[in-house]
Amino acid sequence: MTIRYPNGKRYVPVQQATTGSKNTNPSFSNRGKTLEDELNDTNEYYLANNIAVIHKKPVPIQVVNVRYPARSAAVITEAYFRSPSTTDYNGAWNGKYIDFEAKETKNRTSFPLQNIHEHQVEHMRKVSEQQGIAFLLVKFTVLDRYFIVPYEYFEKMWERMIAGGRKSITLTEIEEMSIEINAGFHPRLDYLGALNALNRNLN
Amino acid sequence: MTIRYPNGKRYVPVQQATTGSKNTNPSFSNRGKTLEDELNDTNEYYLANNIAVIHKKPVPIQVVNVRYPARSAAVITEAYFRSPSTTDYNGAWNGKYIDFEAKETKNRTSFPLQNIHEHQVEHMRKVSEQQGIAFLLVKFTVLDRYFIVPYEYFEKMWERMIAGGRKSITLTEIEEMSIEINAGFHPRLDYLGALNALNRNLN
Repeated sequence: MTIRYPNGKRYVPVQQATTGSKNTNPSFSNRGKTLEDELNDTNEYYLANNIAVIHKKPVPIQVVNVRYPARSAAVITEAYFRSPSTTDYNGAWNGKYIDFEAKETKNRTSFPLQNIHEHQVEHMRKVSEQQGIAFLLVKFTVLDRYFIVPYEYFEKMWERMIAGGRKSITLTEIEEMSIEINAGFHPRLDYLGALNALNRNLN
Repeated sequence: MTIRYPNGKRYVPVQQATTGSKNTNPSFSNRGKTLEDELNDTNEYYLANNIAVIHKKPVPIQVVNVRYPARSAAVITEAYFRSPSTTDYNGAWNGKYIDFEAKETKNRTSFPLQNIHEHQVEHMRKVSEQQGIAFLLVKFTVLDRYFIVPYEYFEKMWERMIAGGRKSITLTEIEEMSIEINAGFHPRLDYLGALNALNRNLN
């Protein structure tokens, strides 16, 4: 399946009944959560409800020294963060391969492309060639808005930058060419529901 | 797609022409390589030849203390290995989601199930339910033999153990119910070719 983007179609998730829950105001109950927390919650929901199996990959770390104390766990005493060669999230959803990178920006009017590494773009291109579903999930933290930017569209913006064009995607461009996820309560960020809505628009 | 297992069908990979290479004896040229090295080589080959995008996940590490020296990279000074909650390898192959755990054993007659964690079995079950292709890749190091054990078959052996049965899968059982990969030169372990051969047997 190839994902394309609807023109300005916005996905409105169906609100789940949350009987007995005290958290009736999603934006309040999730205040202060990072995008990673929100996605972990969402992926746990997907897993528990047999909707999808999607995990965040561990941060790649180069271990240099390890101490093995008697009768206790090995302690890593020297290690370094390595830059990831792939995206952060991947998994299986109803026979499809899902692969995405999640990024937050405090910017109000555009998403800076410097947030993405070239090898991540390369990775998403390869995934897309293997008929996987690759995308960026972008959160504008100040605006509290979330978008799925399909790789096919992101690639055009990346190539525009390579060709000497602007080093960001404007919010207006994102609004036109991406799918907005309306944050809910359960699941917090129903990005798979948004992808479904996108496919319905194409059929 | 659901993978099932052929009865004793052995996959023989087509040998690639290796013009100009001095390494004409694969078993010699790969002597001393670990299974992880062999799979890394294979996955690099798949990636470079646009066959599949499959990566090993980083080892999960819990970082406790980090030092930030002026003008140099952050140093992790205390961290611990965590046990992985998923399998080691996953990725996309021609529209399919691939997920597997790779294990070596020095045993000559059986594969001990204690090599596998219960949460990894649970993970493979979930992947299989999402129509992903889940399997174990087992290397008998002393015998220099490699097998793909499809999850659907592995599950039966796991349940036999849970029910009080033997704590291993015998080599004879594996020979009957799995696909053998004949190690080659390029790629070293053509496990996707073996999966293809398996599918041809079913059609």
